[in-house]
Amino acid sequence: MKATIVQEKVAQAVEILREKGVDVWLTFVRETSAGYDPVLPMIFGSQTLTWESVLMVTAGGETIAITGNLDKTLADDTGAYGTILGYDQSIQPVLLETLRRLDPRTIAINISRDDVFADGLHHGMYLKLLDFLAGTPYAERLVSAGEVIAALRGRKSAAELTRLRQSVATAEAIYDVVFAEMKPGMSEAQIAQIMLAEVAQRGLTTAWAEQSCPGVNAGYAGVVGHASPKDNRAQRGQVIHFDFGVRENEYCSDIQRVVYLLREGETEAPAAVQRAFDTIRIALNAAAAAMKPGITGQGVDAIARRIVVEAGYPEFMHATGHQVGLETHDGGTVLGPAWERYGQTPFGRLEAGQVYAVEPTLVLEGYGIIGLEEDVVVTENGAEFLSHPQQALILL
Amino acid sequence: MKATIVQEKVAQAVEILREKGVDVWLTFVRETSAGYDPVLPMIFGSQTLTWESVLMVTAGGETIAITGNLDKTLADDTGAYGTILGYDQSIQPVLLETLRRLDPRTIAINISRDDVFADGLHHGMYLKLLDFLAGTPYAERLVSAGEVIAALRGRKSAAELTRLRQSVATAEAIYDVVFAEMKPGMSEAQIAQIMLAEVAQRGLTTAWAEQSCPGVNAGYAGVVGHASPKDNRAQRGQVIHFDFGVRENEYCSDIQRVVYLLREGETEAPAAVQRAFDTIRIALNAAAAAMKPGITGQGVDAIARRIVVEAGYPEFMHATGHQVGLETHDGGTVLGPAWERYGQTPFGRLEAGQVYAVEPTLVLEGYGIIGLEEDVVVTENGAEFLSHPQQALILL
Repeated sequence: MKATIVQEKVAQAVEILREKGVDVWLTFVRETSAGYDPVLPMIFGSQTLTWESVLMVTAGGETIAITGNLDKTLADDTGAYGTILGYDQSIQPVLLETLRRLDPRTIAINISRDDVFADGLHHGMYLKLLDFLAGTPYAERLVSAGEVIAALRGRKSAAELTRLRQSVATAEAIYDVVFAEMKPGMSEAQIAQIMLAEVAQRGLTTAWAEQSCPGVNAGYAGVVGHASPKDNRAQRGQVIHFDFGVRENEYCSDIQRVVYLLREGETEAPAAVQRAFDTIRIALNAAAAAMKPGITGQGVDAIARRIVVEAGYPEFMHATGHQVGLETHDGGTVLGPAWERYGQTPFGRLEAGQVYAVEPTLVLEGYGIIGLEEDVVVTENGAEFLSHPQQALILL
Repeated sequence: MKATIVQEKVAQAVEILREKGVDVWLTFVRETSAGYDPVLPMIFGSQTLTWESVLMVTAGGETIAITGNLDKTLADDTGAYGTILGYDQSIQPVLLETLRRLDPRTIAINISRDDVFADGLHHGMYLKLLDFLAGTPYAERLVSAGEVIAALRGRKSAAELTRLRQSVATAEAIYDVVFAEMKPGMSEAQIAQIMLAEVAQRGLTTAWAEQSCPGVNAGYAGVVGHASPKDNRAQRGQVIHFDFGVRENEYCSDIQRVVYLLREGETEAPAAVQRAFDTIRIALNAAAAAMKPGITGQGVDAIARRIVVEAGYPEFMHATGHQVGLETHDGGTVLGPAWERYGQTPFGRLEAGQVYAVEPTLVLEGYGIIGLEEDVVVTENGAEFLSHPQQALILL
């Protein structure tokens, strides 16, 4: 039987625990339809666990699920756990019995100040875990699973890369449709609707919430970013900026494109628009060229940021890039500046197998938002584009 | 303009803060597509916040959203926040400035050992919040928002009740279809597919994950509960047990039904099946009759549990009931026994406006699972059924 992605990732976790010198990785969840831990799609799949449950992976290669008796078959269905233990009234006895048997020196749990994907343990659940471990030596052996999760999430397997390539290809195909069908005079919402219809027709969903996916910005309405497409109409002489991706087979793409609507008589964009586009294109390519294993996220960000600022444009107030995968913003190392908001994430070093969306932007007063975003995979030899980079303004 | 449910719930939160003597309720989130807090659908809606964001409601009636500048329009779109503050590099300065202005004596945050819906603050975020508040008097004024959230989530507004009634009516309509179309010899998966097709045709989703919604159990396969419909085939002489609900306009229904497949020549179910059904029906009705404001969840549970056990059946290893609303298991007070697994939740007292699914069950060896589940709203005068209680075995 072909291993599922959950089976692949749980097996990969064993290797990462050995590399990081962690004995046990322990994920503690309950009612996951509401008390969600973002590692679950990787190590359990889309099914929900109802009662308090523990998923453990050990450096010794054991994979253990402790769930309510009603949920044991769900754990079994994953095919990823060699030992499945159930309970009815309290998880504590079987949890302690298992820990005593394993007697780990370190137990990594899902807490992280900086990485939302490694911070799945809710505070009340943390307190419960401490209650359960009271009087044992294990409370003092708890450490953050941040590095384990970042490595596991970031290093895409071959099956994951295949899915990401497909998700990127679909987003690009939908871009082709909208560029063929959009017309001056349409509202941002109408243009977005063309893309949403294509998403629905393929039985897919957008990579992030439809309120802002696709983001369609005709001209510059004073707001960059996660805003809803509004009744603002696309006019000739404007830049139309797009931010869009799909979720296909669970994996997300994230791509920005820039269109210029030619005025009557124009055959090319005004020099100001062309220069801004070239600046962003150069910034993106320079960042991508630097993306080799070992460079920090901050190092990559600084390259793109400097090119934009030194060309005389306002500095973009977001990171140059982020990882993509099961989520559009997939956590771990960020290609970002050393701002408080990004915590430690810009100081991580790039690893082979990571997939990033690279997205420098600028606002060009009078025309609109110039922002490109391409998806790339880091290899031992450097970055390889998964998307087809936009090399020229799309003139309509 | 008609108030949305988010606007209704945020306004209701002000009243609850006054009642509970809490000055400020503070929800602290980031990247909510992954770092989900289950209060967000109530107080923010379905849009996702990307950067660290704070939503505050005060007993004085202020409603404040602090978000990244890119997300300010999303906060504005809710229509629920009177003050919307943005930031680019760090949320800390504007958060502290706001707290100093309000100078609350108590700040309720989303932490709870027992209620998953009141435990939305992840542990790393809790540590970040403490970092932000270091050197101020506010770290020592943090309290649990558990009671605030349980009251807010539990006490359904008129608009919420309208949606819940609709969700129940749709689930019942889909039950009518499957009872008309199912046949002996069909697999559990085929029977489930009839229902899933009806859900899809209405443009809805199931109330919980499709892997176990509907739950269809033909006979007794040794597993009760959250298991996937398998290739097990429905046979004459078996009890077919269903557990199903839909999510419609965001609100969930949760209903169980019991069918008996008559053997050749039978005109009624065997006495053993009839007696088990009557026991569960009586247990459910007795529990519902006791559901008045003021009784504890444990008090309601004990009534149904005792009827089942005293009739000589095995004790069901789950609570007699749970609240339903935005989620199928909607948190707060549970109609459950004093088992460790349920924490403090069985000791809560019922309040008018709460909606519960009441679901005593038993396993009848040789026949299958006998489980009924009806959705009821608690009023000042007692429980009122939202569903049409199953009064007799469905004989097919």
